[in-house]
Amino acid sequence: MSDYKAFNVVLADKVAHVVINRPEKVNAMNADFWREIIEIFRWVDDTDEVRAVVISGAGKHFSSGIDLMMLASLGSQMGPDVGRNAEKLRRKILELQASFNAVDNCRKPVLAAIQGYCLGGAIDLVSACDMRYATDDAQFSIKEIDIGMAADVGTLQRLPRIIGDGMMRELAFTGRTINGEEARSIGLVNRTYADADALLDGVMGIAREIASKSPVAIRGTKEMIRYMRDHRVDDGLEYIATWNAAMLQSADLRVAMTAHMSKQKPEFAD
Amino acid sequence: MSDYKAFNVVLADKVAHVVINRPEKVNAMNADFWREIIEIFRWVDDTDEVRAVVISGAGKHFSSGIDLMMLASLGSQMGPDVGRNAEKLRRKILELQASFNAVDNCRKPVLAAIQGYCLGGAIDLVSACDMRYATDDAQFSIKEIDIGMAADVGTLQRLPRIIGDGMMRELAFTGRTINGEEARSIGLVNRTYADADALLDGVMGIAREIASKSPVAIRGTKEMIRYMRDHRVDDGLEYIATWNAAMLQSADLRVAMTAHMSKQKPEFAD
Amino acid sequence: MSDYKAFNVVLADKVAHVVINRPEKVNAMNADFWREIIEIFRWVDDTDEVRAVVISGAGKHFSSGIDLMMLASLGSQMGPDVGRNAEKLRRKILELQASFNAVDNCRKPVLAAIQGYCLGGAIDLVSACDMRYATDDAQFSIKEIDIGMAADVGTLQRLPRIIGDGMMRELAFTGRTINGEEARSIGLVNRTYADADALLDGVMGIAREIASKSPVAIRGTKEMIRYMRDHRVDDGLEYIATWNAAMLQSADLRVAMTAHMSKQKPEFAD
Amino acid sequence: MSDYKAFNVVLADKVAHVVINRPEKVNAMNADFWREIIEIFRWVDDTDEVRAVVISGAGKHFSSGIDLMMLASLGSQMGPDVGRNAEKLRRKILELQASFNAVDNCRKPVLAAIQGYCLGGAIDLVSACDMRYATDDAQFSIKEIDIGMAADVGTLQRLPRIIGDGMMRELAFTGRTINGEEARSIGLVNRTYADADALLDGVMGIAREIASKSPVAIRGTKEMIRYMRDHRVDDGLEYIATWNAAMLQSADLRVAMTAHMSKQKPEFAD
Amino acid sequence: MSDYKAFNVVLADKVAHVVINRPEKVNAMNADFWREIIEIFRWVDDTDEVRAVVISGAGKHFSSGIDLMMLASLGSQMGPDVGRNAEKLRRKILELQASFNAVDNCRKPVLAAIQGYCLGGAIDLVSACDMRYATDDAQFSIKEIDIGMAADVGTLQRLPRIIGDGMMRELAFTGRTINGEEARSIGLVNRTYADADALLDGVMGIAREIASKSPVAIRGTKEMIRYMRDHRVDDGLEYIATWNAAMLQSADLRVAMTAHMSKQKPEFAD
Amino acid sequence: MSDYKAFNVVLADKVAHVVINRPEKVNAMNADFWREIIEIFRWVDDTDEVRAVVISGAGKHFSSGIDLMMLASLGSQMGPDVGRNAEKLRRKILELQASFNAVDNCRKPVLAAIQGYCLGGAIDLVSACDMRYATDDAQFSIKEIDIGMAADVGTLQRLPRIIGDGMMRELAFTGRTINGEEARSIGLVNRTYADADALLDGVMGIAREIASKSPVAIRGTKEMIRYMRDHRVDDGLEYIATWNAAMLQSADLRVAMTAHMSKQKPEFAD
Repeated sequence: MSDYKAFNVVLADKVAHVVINRPEKVNAMNADFWREIIEIFRWVDDTDEVRAVVISGAGKHFSSGIDLMMLASLGSQMGPDVGRNAEKLRRKILELQASFNAVDNCRKPVLAAIQGYCLGGAIDLVSACDMRYATDDAQFSIKEIDIGMAADVGTLQRLPRIIGDGMMRELAFTGRTINGEEARSIGLVNRTYADADALLDGVMGIAREIASKSPVAIRGTKEMIRYMRDHRVDDGLEYIATWNAAMLQSADLRVAMTAHMSKQKPEFAD
Repeated sequence: MSDYKAFNVVLADKVAHVVINRPEKVNAMNADFWREIIEIFRWVDDTDEVRAVVISGAGKHFSSGIDLMMLASLGSQMGPDVGRNAEKLRRKILELQASFNAVDNCRKPVLAAIQGYCLGGAIDLVSACDMRYATDDAQFSIKEIDIGMAADVGTLQRLPRIIGDGMMRELAFTGRTINGEEARSIGLVNRTYADADALLDGVMGIAREIASKSPVAIRGTKEMIRYMRDHRVDDGLEYIATWNAAMLQSADLRVAMTAHMSKQKPEFAD
Repeated sequence: MSDYKAFNVVLADKVAHVVINRPEKVNAMNADFWREIIEIFRWVDDTDEVRAVVISGAGKHFSSGIDLMMLASLGSQMGPDVGRNAEKLRRKILELQASFNAVDNCRKPVLAAIQGYCLGGAIDLVSACDMRYATDDAQFSIKEIDIGMAADVGTLQRLPRIIGDGMMRELAFTGRTINGEEARSIGLVNRTYADADALLDGVMGIAREIASKSPVAIRGTKEMIRYMRDHRVDDGLEYIATWNAAMLQSADLRVAMTAHMSKQKPEFAD
Repeated sequence: MSDYKAFNVVLADKVAHVVINRPEKVNAMNADFWREIIEIFRWVDDTDEVRAVVISGAGKHFSSGIDLMMLASLGSQMGPDVGRNAEKLRRKILELQASFNAVDNCRKPVLAAIQGYCLGGAIDLVSACDMRYATDDAQFSIKEIDIGMAADVGTLQRLPRIIGDGMMRELAFTGRTINGEEARSIGLVNRTYADADALLDGVMGIAREIASKSPVAIRGTKEMIRYMRDHRVDDGLEYIATWNAAMLQSADLRVAMTAHMSKQKPEFAD
Repeated sequence: MSDYKAFNVVLADKVAHVVINRPEKVNAMNADFWREIIEIFRWVDDTDEVRAVVISGAGKHFSSGIDLMMLASLGSQMGPDVGRNAEKLRRKILELQASFNAVDNCRKPVLAAIQGYCLGGAIDLVSACDMRYATDDAQFSIKEIDIGMAADVGTLQRLPRIIGDGMMRELAFTGRTINGEEARSIGLVNRTYADADALLDGVMGIAREIASKSPVAIRGTKEMIRYMRDHRVDDGLEYIATWNAAMLQSADLRVAMTAHMSKQKPEFAD
Repeated sequence: MSDYKAFNVVLADKVAHVVINRPEKVNAMNADFWREIIEIFRWVDDTDEVRAVVISGAGKHFSSGIDLMMLASLGSQMGPDVGRNAEKLRRKILELQASFNAVDNCRKPVLAAIQGYCLGGAIDLVSACDMRYATDDAQFSIKEIDIGMAADVGTLQRLPRIIGDGMMRELAFTGRTINGEEARSIGLVNRTYADADALLDGVMGIAREIASKSPVAIRGTKEMIRYMRDHRVDDGLEYIATWNAAMLQSADLRVAMTAHMSKQKPEFAD
């Protein structure tokens, strides 16, 4: 794999482990982070051997969100004309969003393993993942409200589909910190673990389980769930029918059926 | 009622009880099943006396999902041209989907009473019902992933509106089995019961309660909730206004108001 | 503030407290109510000093829903032609809906504090609020089904986005009464309190917390969450980028950042 | 082919010619018509040999629209309760719409050849066809307005996508009759012909041309255009990519390319 | 009728003639205009006797668009904070839009009779009408581009549904002036007339024709066409079925059928 | 500017002239073409000095569409598994689509100047431009149908919004060739010219006219029209209000107003 400044990436057992690797900065998201995450997920998409992804943070915390220096430098690029500044800001925001769209649109399942702080931009990031798991004492906060802005890289767009509408608004308006257990009870994370080691063990286990399934079936399943977030039931039914029109002609179905009959574990090509 | 091969259907107290009746095959969904369910729900829609439906499985289990023989026979119909096969498969899938659309679009509320296995296609079926109830020890699994395919008769389309997005993905990617209690905690079922008898008693009670309400009001309520699954709030408000423009001129409103004033139980025409 | 017949309105600490004030009628919603609530929320929108709203009911109950006298009087205005009656009813329903749309579209967060009865139209009302809080012994019921009609001023449109689909249908079909605790467990309310005093204290505290944040950021946050209820993720991302193109040029971001650096509490202009 | 009461159907040169065959009644659409048209288009969809459809009217006129006797008989089925009548009417209208949906959703291109009267329901019918051709002196009128109703089997839904919005409203509000030439100038028909013979010759020629193309490509093309009537450009792009993922593996592409290289006419399997 | 400053309104033969009445200012749209147009269309909607509306301009021109003084005064209300200015501007634009939404949403057909200048805001206005008619020498220009702004009260939103996409963009980007004849050829107006007198005569004739039809049918027809501008064909079909479920129970259908049988002109109640 | 293999690009008078430059291959779209067009439009978007774009073809023809060699090479990359091939094809098609999305999403207006052949993929390309102009004898054909496939890089998605639905289907099903004049009459091109020189002169003139307008206003106008192709009128109104909330604070409005008052030509910053 390439060398990254803000990340460390390891591939084993068909699972890519993507670690945010700036522990001395509480894994704050700097310019390297925003650029490299796109490259990493392009590599994930293009590499058949990768069948699932786990994303976690090095050190005590998952991430404290966007690097405030980077945010401040944005302000210094503003010129005298409000309209032209607006265009510049709009394009900059769209560019930052593209980094997390790369996670959301990734063809392989992405699991977030969250310990310690998961603040501001970090919530935007994990909202773009497929599933989220945390330690009991993880701390979540939609911190943007406390720096005087509406979150604009995905939290307000994706989180309402994941947690209940009423609690979504409370968390976004107040910036209140919740722990792993409350996060689980509102559906933000699927399960909590006693500590960071147990967390990583658990999440890696789920990822490996997913990696053992038919990759054709997993990708179809992800595409369909992603699609349903924004589309009607009737459109979704027509879409899966069109999708499976090709995919049911794949060998994987036969491999799985044969294994099923003979009570053996199937082996799927990448 | 007609004679069905895969079902047993009984109408009592204005509640139709639709029983999947192939216990020796764990109620696997064969060709009879897919065809007859459409006829049954057409009859439900056309019969004024039916005001609610309960669907359950004969024997120890609700259903093990699609009959694998039937799935295999699909494969044998494939010809040499990938494109023409794709068209054939696409139409076949749309045809199977139509069987569960008949449940989803039924004008009367449909309640599923689930004991034992509820696997693969059975999840697609109960996702198309209005409400789901289960025994504590029922077993749910999105089994399609283990036969190498993305579920294509409704689970991936309807279930994300019912349970949380994060757990939805975990269950669909891993095929993990959950019991009645976990199903309740994520919103998949509304309530669990100690055993199959208590379950059927409880669900029949709820169905009879619904059957005692104004059928005009029940149908309007179902139509509106179904509509909101796929439409905007403003469209929904306009739609109910147009709908009630006719329905508020029904006698049922007067019947209900009069009963309410006199503290008596109202009797509504079918 | 103006004098209202059905409400009492107080503004303190930048929080408007809107009290439904017909305790002798269990706060039933009469013609005054439907008209005045629009005026009140127009005032809220136009008054910079108001940064959050709490809505509650005077006396033992939140509200018993629409005034049945008012509903009955609607019937007496019907003429001989079904078509012309339908048009009249349709327009009347749209007019009533407008009263709760005013709550839903309000630019400032609206918190409902619910004790005692919250029945029929009262559920329509709280469904249009941002967050809901209740006493343990509050009683919720979608009562419309018992007067022979499908709810038509917002419950069936907004509540499915707030609570789970399966329980939504059960409550709407049966009119079953649930208490504060069950309401919390299905996401209808965010938290419960032991009694009405604790409830109002708690909710006022949350409202004041929200009122201390940047009003520009709060309004953007509310607009985005409201938008996402009905729009696609990609549309939402583009919308926030366009919105923040202007709003990130506001002084509030600087004020918040400066306060953050100096560990002080920021003071935002109205 | 089966025997039809309201139609005459002939298959030649892979083109099905569907003739409305009640010339003595100006081809008014009676109960037979509405039922048989569904059967005919199911046969068209299921018969590989049919690659295109031409629909025309026997005698001097295309069709005068819905049979007024049939409409009147609907009125006689109304009972005393406005609400229950409304449900009955709603279902009846949906049932009639299904007849023209069968035309709209047909997988093969449908061409209408229109001479003489094309009134009321006949406009609903031709709006559901892919293309329309007429004699110079054909007469079109959205006649429903003159029998005191809004057109409800497709004209108001499909025609605005075909002709300009401004002229659409004028024709729908006034019921004004336009001839073939004006119909062409607003895009309602693609071309006009001097008389009925020239019309049928011309339309049959276009249909045979279409029938000579790859049926896989034609069906994909129709599905995509149908889809775009109601969907976004980005959704359409994703849909065709998924569709062609299977269809580009068909032999037809090779057959066409080979023929193209050797300057010969390709022959495609049905 | 009330007294208006910017308009003159006359009701005759069930047609309301709304005249923009500031000829000495080329009928520029000032504050009175924007406020009064809402009142006028509320009156139109509430007055059963009004069945159609004609809107025209007093003097030589239809209108030169928004009053530039008014636009300039907006600028003078701006404060020092870009974010708060943005909110103020956004709300002001939404408020101006509401004036033309009142025209668009009016339940009765609105016909524009256009002579002389129809510039900038005047295009926004006529785009919100149902049909447009003009003199041969009328002059249309999307003038906003020449005052350095994107049109924001309806032209860019509504005109693309009326004229072709390619010409829409050319006119919006260049501000090029087109005359009545070119306007007709691209579908912007339905017909042109030699001079202002012929124009008004012609348009009044069409309006009276519309006013002679069943008002229930006309309103349903308008609602459906309006609905289809933004909705899918399948949604539109379901909506008209629900709408007509009530409206086909109106007496107008009977009145029209009886008149039709006896070859007499029907008389419909308001 | 960079050096391109398939293009020649010149910037003058703030208009970028992008010439497809493979005249010896009838400007067929090869791999260089698909890759470079993305780079070129990224440069257009990022270069403030570019305010409008003209795209044309070197030599006698605009373009004959996709290079058939390239298409054939796609086939040779197919493996033995239909499902995996389908995924590969789907991604390849999405990748090709991205090249024309870059044109469609470009922030500056793009004008196509078309002479000679405009076949297959060339129609997909010009459908993604803002406006189209042609010589009288240009030749347009949706050629894909003749190589046995449904067009999949934009024609079927974008063209139905530009030309009438009925003619759209005829051209797509038959592949019939139309000339410049017929293209104009159905709205495919805005204007025709006698020959290629007159064409380029004319189109450059329009482009320079657009380049002289406020770039802030032009970009807003394009964004709004693009948005309306896929969104509802009410969403469009809200979007322009949010957009203009920032843009009306630009200096351009003042510059334009001042110039307007003093009857001078305004000069806008890039």
